[in-house]
Amino acid sequence: MSFRASESLSEQIAQHLAQQIITGDLVEGERIQELRIAKELNVSRGSVREALLILARRRLIEIYPRRGAVVAEMSVTQVRGLYEVVGMLLQQVVRKAAQGWRQPDMEGLVAHVHRLQSHVGAHDLEAFFEATFDLFRQVQGFAGNPYMEEILEDLQPAVRRSYYLALHTSRREMEESFSFLKGMTDSILLRKGDQAASLVDEFCQHQCHLVLDSLMRVKQIEAAWAQRHRR
Amino acid sequence: MSFRASESLSEQIAQHLAQQIITGDLVEGERIQELRIAKELNVSRGSVREALLILARRRLIEIYPRRGAVVAEMSVTQVRGLYEVVGMLLQQVVRKAAQGWRQPDMEGLVAHVHRLQSHVGAHDLEAFFEATFDLFRQVQGFAGNPYMEEILEDLQPAVRRSYYLALHTSRREMEESFSFLKGMTDSILLRKGDQAASLVDEFCQHQCHLVLDSLMRVKQIEAAWAQRHRR
Repeated sequence: MSFRASESLSEQIAQHLAQQIITGDLVEGERIQELRIAKELNVSRGSVREALLILARRRLIEIYPRRGAVVAEMSVTQVRGLYEVVGMLLQQVVRKAAQGWRQPDMEGLVAHVHRLQSHVGAHDLEAFFEATFDLFRQVQGFAGNPYMEEILEDLQPAVRRSYYLALHTSRREMEESFSFLKGMTDSILLRKGDQAASLVDEFCQHQCHLVLDSLMRVKQIEAAWAQRHRR
Repeated sequence: MSFRASESLSEQIAQHLAQQIITGDLVEGERIQELRIAKELNVSRGSVREALLILARRRLIEIYPRRGAVVAEMSVTQVRGLYEVVGMLLQQVVRKAAQGWRQPDMEGLVAHVHRLQSHVGAHDLEAFFEATFDLFRQVQGFAGNPYMEEILEDLQPAVRRSYYLALHTSRREMEESFSFLKGMTDSILLRKGDQAASLVDEFCQHQCHLVLDSLMRVKQIEAAWAQRHRR
């Protein structure tokens, strides 16, 4: 694969690597080698370095002084911390949205929910996944707070990684997510900010548990294999 | 001035420029010229560029495609947004601190408050300013949330800029701030998390208004001068 030169080359490289981390093609602890990626993508090492700094800021990788870049782990502390912060910020965002939407915004919100519903109907997990973030992009705009929007934007890749895992972990999670997203949007449209916020809180807690369970199962399977190996 | 070579040269340059923005030596809208700074500090343009990217992330400057870097403005939306986000996060942090502190932490918290009090007694605004952040560094540790800590760390330069302005705007603000910080710490030590959180909320609102008033006065004075000029 090769990328065309552009102002945001390092951003393109970052997004390419982010996608691999989000979908689990690159797993936690895996090393990301500057030189290998520069060759693979036919770009300079400097651009790859910049891309790695972007990914570190988005909390998808960790950069260690001598070891270089490795895919960030999804520890219990990390996952809990992520859902706690995102939950708090989104609760505030949906409260603002419930107060702030105007007639012309309604159509967009309703259209997002319809699109999500049709993806559920078609069992199209990838499209559903993307449509979730399209909905939140509109909702976040109501915060009227540049700091809040930027923080949520920076957290999005980590959220994507976790949400992707959740959707692929449980067959029912797409329906669960849809019912939450619809309920949240309905509450916003009914100007019930507190109700929307408590749905966000509930859903974040539910999904946090789901992801933690799934990570624990992965570790149990790894441990079982390791034990079998030792026999 | 010149800096010694080190891994974090760009971080040192960033902190040097940040200090000038926080204390108002560089004012909003002022251009920051890569080349001039590289010469002044006797460092490479590349290092200055990296430093500017750090400052943009910390929301002290804005980088525009052709115009280059300028000191970020303190608009009403920015200031309100900053105090809203910081207030939310700190409320959660002090709730966690009230639940989580253990006997050995107590001494540190009490010592911070004593130090603040002695700076008030000595009318030492600069030392008081720094000691405030020392106290919050300890309190933030109780969040047990790497995302929360990183977000607050990233917001700190913008908070410093605003807090510095507040302390220098009103003679009484150091006493006001001290009484808030003492009340908050006392509530934490009494395990009254909700009380600590509502003090944080109140203080953030108070200081937000103070900063907005002060910015409005500056703009009125500028407008008066501009009018005088036109006569």
